[in-house]
Amino acid sequence: MEVCPVELSLKVLKNKWTIFIIRELLVSKKRFNELKKSLKGVTTKVLVETLKHLEQLNILNRNSNNEFPLKVTYSLTELGKSLKLVLDALSSWACENEEFIKFN
Amino acid sequence: MEVCPVELSLKVLKNKWTIFIIRELLVSKKRFNELKKSLKGVTTKVLVETLKHLEQLNILNRNSNNEFPLKVTYSLTELGKSLKLVLDALSSWACENEEFIKFN
Repeated sequence: MEVCPVELSLKVLKNKWTIFIIRELLVSKKRFNELKKSLKGVTTKVLVETLKHLEQLNILNRNSNNEFPLKVTYSLTELGKSLKLVLDALSSWACENEEFIKFN
Repeated sequence: MEVCPVELSLKVLKNKWTIFIIRELLVSKKRFNELKKSLKGVTTKVLVETLKHLEQLNILNRNSNNEFPLKVTYSLTELGKSLKLVLDALSSWACENEEFIKFN
């Protein structure tokens, strides 16, 4: 692999919103407004861009019922689900070290 | 834990530069210019701020020889070294899925 694997992962994960979206979709598929609600502080613009970024990378699927009223949900692909390993590492590091992590 | 552990980790890790600094210091302690050279594209301002952020969080130590000429190196604390688990997860995810990761 030419590029450092950590850099490749970060090119996919990009920012915290990407990780929070994956966290939410690891639980279940979600509608746009459900994601907007659980990602406190995200703007509609950033959420739209991040979902598009993840769809282009085949991390998630945009599922539409193709009938009126239109219903769109987002769900993880197998590649997306495999990111659970990274989220688990982030989660267990924080749980194991919570008492040592002090923000001024 | 009140805050979601993934969010706590991301509050510490903050951005890609934090992760790249930890990646470099997991190999060995480094001087400022050594870090600046290996983190392609980082500005001096961002590197100074990120190192301060990590020092305040006790992720790394700033070691100074307190004599002329002044020599400063940065090294990981035990808390910093424990982040290897997260970097390993990022690295193995990319290695296992490299063929499926396509950027347009």
